[in-house]
Amino acid sequence: MCSNCDYTIHGRQHHFGWDNSIEPAARVAPGSTIEFECHDSSAGQLTPDSTVADVATLDFSRINPVSGPIFVEGAEPGDALKVTIEAFKPSGFGWTANIPGFGLLADDFKKPALTLWHYDTATMEPAAFGTHGRVPLKPFAGTIGNAPADKGLHSVVPPRRVGGNLDIRDLSAGTVLYLPVEVAGALFSVGDTHAAQGDGEVCGTAIESRMNTVLTLDLVKGANLKMPRFTTAGPVTRHLDAKGYEVTTGVGADLMEGAKHAVADMVELLSARYNLNPIDAYMLVSTCGDLRISEIVDMPNWVVSFYFPRCVFE
Amino acid sequence: MCSNCDYTIHGRQHHFGWDNSIEPAARVAPGSTIEFECHDSSAGQLTPDSTVADVATLDFSRINPVSGPIFVEGAEPGDALKVTIEAFKPSGFGWTANIPGFGLLADDFKKPALTLWHYDTATMEPAAFGTHGRVPLKPFAGTIGNAPADKGLHSVVPPRRVGGNLDIRDLSAGTVLYLPVEVAGALFSVGDTHAAQGDGEVCGTAIESRMNTVLTLDLVKGANLKMPRFTTAGPVTRHLDAKGYEVTTGVGADLMEGAKHAVADMVELLSARYNLNPIDAYMLVSTCGDLRISEIVDMPNWVVSFYFPRCVFE
Repeated sequence: MCSNCDYTIHGRQHHFGWDNSIEPAARVAPGSTIEFECHDSSAGQLTPDSTVADVATLDFSRINPVSGPIFVEGAEPGDALKVTIEAFKPSGFGWTANIPGFGLLADDFKKPALTLWHYDTATMEPAAFGTHGRVPLKPFAGTIGNAPADKGLHSVVPPRRVGGNLDIRDLSAGTVLYLPVEVAGALFSVGDTHAAQGDGEVCGTAIESRMNTVLTLDLVKGANLKMPRFTTAGPVTRHLDAKGYEVTTGVGADLMEGAKHAVADMVELLSARYNLNPIDAYMLVSTCGDLRISEIVDMPNWVVSFYFPRCVFE
Repeated sequence: MCSNCDYTIHGRQHHFGWDNSIEPAARVAPGSTIEFECHDSSAGQLTPDSTVADVATLDFSRINPVSGPIFVEGAEPGDALKVTIEAFKPSGFGWTANIPGFGLLADDFKKPALTLWHYDTATMEPAAFGTHGRVPLKPFAGTIGNAPADKGLHSVVPPRRVGGNLDIRDLSAGTVLYLPVEVAGALFSVGDTHAAQGDGEVCGTAIESRMNTVLTLDLVKGANLKMPRFTTAGPVTRHLDAKGYEVTTGVGADLMEGAKHAVADMVELLSARYNLNPIDAYMLVSTCGDLRISEIVDMPNWVVSFYFPRCVFE
């Protein structure tokens, strides 16, 4: 375990959904470093032995458990929780699934599908995809947030201004994240760890992978943030940009339609070029392709671009 | 001029808007390399001597002249025009303006504003912003496209599936762009050159800068592209990512609102931290900040993030 952590939050100390009445797993002083045993987003339902049949029968009441909550002494509404992302201890196994009804191209890909991944936790070398592909890894926590002020149980699926299921792939080791606090103690939780993901998480899942997460929690009193913000310690794409990108675009008056178009064109391009089943290409690009807004001002048409790193196949 | 070009398109050979009845400036064989003298998007209305008063009186009928059109022999509807972006020859002067009614935060920034830039065309070192800022440069053509099939004159402002005002900042030297052809000969034109821009071009203008553009035009017969796509020769952000990023987010059910929120928060953050006038921060981030879609699947809330490169001030 963590040699210089002040607390360990064990895997059993988790909850489903956000509810500010959940009893804290620990009460800590600002500045504490904590190791969280995080579950994968299936809560262990998908394993190295799983098949696509297990995707079809997933128990959604057990999706995205988060470890916590942590009551940070002195945290009050209007403060920001400063989360220094120290380290991840990946498990070496991961999965990516197409879950019917979920994902950017849910209308095109209606059947369940599953890709299993194995990676070397010592070297963190890119994970093999089929016989030719290699996906660079950069672990992060998909769900990281504070409890919302609204009473009752709230779904873990949508992110909120207090964070939650943000799925921001640059919340990796070295990044400092600032989250609005809405309740006394902040009631911070984390989970849904990913070994790799592109901007967008387009198929709805990343390389979902159980791993421990080490964080330092501190306070910025009276920060009055409107939304989460973060600072990265350095470059964010050098693990995969060396060979450049293949890029498709969606040009039109709606950003969502533009994103769908760009991703669908990339799936078609990669399927044809590398003789992939389109559903496999769709899951692949979710783990490493980036959605960017190239242009959002040239009325009435915007440009959304989807960047696929050429290092995966070249 | 270009020592190994087959043609030179001079600055007088330009047009305003797209119209497939415009007489070609040249008829070329596939594989030809052409140097285009491109105008800046103000068609020279803004100069090193300009003031904000000149923004208020811009003649919009002269906005975004494009040089061309080029009739590529043998190009037919359904083909793709393959545009190899060879080189740019920048002029050393540029401008960024807030034009009332135009730009992502037009409702917040209603007054005209102007930033003038000078840069060294030999070294292409980052351009100075005020006394502390330095914006890395990467030249590209904001408007690059083929004539649309629809008859008549079409505004140059919105991009279309044949390209046009795409404002994709990675259409820089070394990139290969593929554009759908809708009319015989393709009728390709280019202009609106930029010395630097972030993904989004959020204030509506980049570092607008007159420069010559060298391109090779070739054909991919029967490509049947739906939208533009491109391949970059290598990494696309290493000129500015070394020190990492400051990132703001917009979390919610609408991508456009999320983008506005993320950019507004970044303007606020930079204005406070570096004692900038908010309108100046807004123009600055348009030249170097990147809009990304971090998450587009966690119904019903998406995450748009705005990445500001820390190297500008650090």
